[in-house]
Amino acid sequence: MSEPTPTPTPTPTQTQTRIPDLAARAAALDATDELGKLRDRFTLPDGVVYLDGNSLGALPATVAQTTADVVTRQWGELLIRSWDESDWWTAPERIGDKLAPLVGAAPGQVVVGDSTSVNLFKALVGAARLAAPGRTKMLVDAATFPTDGYIAASAARMTGLTATPVDPAHAAEAMDEDTAVVLLNHVDYRSGRLHDLPALTAAAHAAGAIMVWDLCHSAGALPVGLDAHAVDLAVGCTYKYLNGGPGSPAYLYIADRHQAAFDSPLPGWNGHADPFAMTPEFTPADGARRGRVGTPDILSMLALEASLDAWDGVSVAAVREKSLALTDFFLECVAAYVPEGRVEPVTPAEHDRRGSQVSLRTENAREVMRELIERGVIGDFRAPDVLRFGFTPLYVGFADAERAARSLGHIFG
Amino acid sequence: MSEPTPTPTPTPTQTQTRIPDLAARAAALDATDELGKLRDRFTLPDGVVYLDGNSLGALPATVAQTTADVVTRQWGELLIRSWDESDWWTAPERIGDKLAPLVGAAPGQVVVGDSTSVNLFKALVGAARLAAPGRTKMLVDAATFPTDGYIAASAARMTGLTATPVDPAHAAEAMDEDTAVVLLNHVDYRSGRLHDLPALTAAAHAAGAIMVWDLCHSAGALPVGLDAHAVDLAVGCTYKYLNGGPGSPAYLYIADRHQAAFDSPLPGWNGHADPFAMTPEFTPADGARRGRVGTPDILSMLALEASLDAWDGVSVAAVREKSLALTDFFLECVAAYVPEGRVEPVTPAEHDRRGSQVSLRTENAREVMRELIERGVIGDFRAPDVLRFGFTPLYVGFADAERAARSLGHIFG
Repeated sequence: MSEPTPTPTPTPTQTQTRIPDLAARAAALDATDELGKLRDRFTLPDGVVYLDGNSLGALPATVAQTTADVVTRQWGELLIRSWDESDWWTAPERIGDKLAPLVGAAPGQVVVGDSTSVNLFKALVGAARLAAPGRTKMLVDAATFPTDGYIAASAARMTGLTATPVDPAHAAEAMDEDTAVVLLNHVDYRSGRLHDLPALTAAAHAAGAIMVWDLCHSAGALPVGLDAHAVDLAVGCTYKYLNGGPGSPAYLYIADRHQAAFDSPLPGWNGHADPFAMTPEFTPADGARRGRVGTPDILSMLALEASLDAWDGVSVAAVREKSLALTDFFLECVAAYVPEGRVEPVTPAEHDRRGSQVSLRTENAREVMRELIERGVIGDFRAPDVLRFGFTPLYVGFADAERAARSLGHIFG
Repeated sequence: MSEPTPTPTPTPTQTQTRIPDLAARAAALDATDELGKLRDRFTLPDGVVYLDGNSLGALPATVAQTTADVVTRQWGELLIRSWDESDWWTAPERIGDKLAPLVGAAPGQVVVGDSTSVNLFKALVGAARLAAPGRTKMLVDAATFPTDGYIAASAARMTGLTATPVDPAHAAEAMDEDTAVVLLNHVDYRSGRLHDLPALTAAAHAAGAIMVWDLCHSAGALPVGLDAHAVDLAVGCTYKYLNGGPGSPAYLYIADRHQAAFDSPLPGWNGHADPFAMTPEFTPADGARRGRVGTPDILSMLALEASLDAWDGVSVAAVREKSLALTDFFLECVAAYVPEGRVEPVTPAEHDRRGSQVSLRTENAREVMRELIERGVIGDFRAPDVLRFGFTPLYVGFADAERAARSLGHIFG
């Protein structure tokens, strides 16, 4: 695919002459895009370019029918019997297994339920309890989406560790014999920067620490390889690149080798080896199921299950290839359409450091995004000065990228 | 209403002669039941007597349409804009306020989200941090639904307290100057026994302890009076007598006077004073909103919101009156229809000690319940020997109670 353009930002006159080139290029790229037909698996409003799938994924076409069935038949008619007859009870681990290939996990290690924040609390306290005794530090991604930092502070406080912020770019250097747990984001939510999961996991292990990854901004957009890289624990949401719906249940990955010792701070009855025995003592279930807590939220969970059908037959490697092509092309279009000096890319240009979004720093970013949305291009704004554009290869095409950049150019034109 | 029959259990011949009496009595009671028309607010399958609303409430008629709108329009068309335009963001406290009158709470003290187990962890750790320093004991309902005991053990372990099981009937005697926190169930899930919330709360306060109530089996079935009785903290689910749907979000009550000092172990970004400032330090929001954790589960939450419309204009006092009448009548019918010695009521006969269910102990309870369900009477079974029948006055009538008891009689006949 094309590399970021090395030419200087063109003048307005140049821009006008280049519009047909880029539009035609986009059309040609879309015509040969093997993932292009997947857009039919989603319901998107007409006339909208949706570049906010890194915040809320679009609606998969199968969800409405599933949800209606869950409400009217499974709940309304079968009522309590659906816990068995509609397989409600096993949904958290069944959907975990359905999601697992997207993050490179073999079956039996992923369980779905609760929010990302709650799962992170389980993972971090669990990690602290798995860590070698005597270690005192929890290294926490200093640029993290804030909830991770807040939850890490609480988990550290409640396990006697000290939470220490660390720049992910220099995290390996900070890992030492005093490090119990390391928490990093695979892709930074604000900058779109991709961190080196294999190398950082290996560094944590070399230091004898337990590695916890937050996959919110990478799962569904690029290969993660949890098993291949021997990650210990991981969490992520399902409402971004996985399109599970607003606030859909998050997930927890517990590597096979840690399951028997994983000691959850939230030992709810659903994580019990025999929940309906209703014994006063807690005996954790085998496998990832011990990461369950309370009664699963069935409407949202089964909507998520249906949404994952959009991945049938899709290769994450192909998604990654298209994602990089899209973000390259978008950066090229932005360079062509937006007057020089008005926006500054924050997302790294190097492919191996880029997630599936492009963040641009600009003045009046909040107002610029509002105007873009009025023009039918939906991205989002992150304080104080960042425009974010997320590229979901399952439903975003090259013409979308071209139109988004052109609209941005018009605002500055 | 009728009192439990003082006459001995009739012989089969007597039973046959009494059937018309009880059926006619049921019809007459239904005809004058002012809440009877509320059944139209629910979608129930034909031919089924549903007495398991204490496990999963029936489907309110408005939910299917709301859910379809949330999926297809709010998510599918408005996409990310719905966080503001469809008021998704404020749903946890808005629905908390909608639910609050049903548990006797003024606005601003109830927040909806997460599971009961997760909310209980927040409440118990929060309570331990509110408690007077130096106290070491957490008294925990010994007969509790098991998840409360498991979570209490974890909360105690993580706050340095010792969890001590206590028989709720003798809890007041166990409260002393060493008691930091008391956790009790308002209604016991197994026996249906109602505990004296006002007196036990007063006893906890007299001992200087923080009182936490689990309202899972009382909210929506009888008056709770959280504010009136100066309860400190409370949690409950919404999928039993509140009919919110399978695994619908639970709630947390934080009394006004404790909110400023409430220190959650799960300080997610949704509980931050200014979530979108995305600051590295956690500054808790004012009010019950500080009990929020991660991104709310919108599909389930808005289904719950719609389901609460079933309560429009309904008085909890009237619900309680009908509930007692229903359970009295059911007990009377059971005594009339079931041969002597085959079932033994576990639920107290005294009104002020009875929730909205009737539990009957019997041999082969699991098989008996299976047969009942085949006959269209849905209750549930709790190991090892209990049949549970929940009476939801919004959609259960006296003819239902009579038919259920009659079916039970046929099984033993």
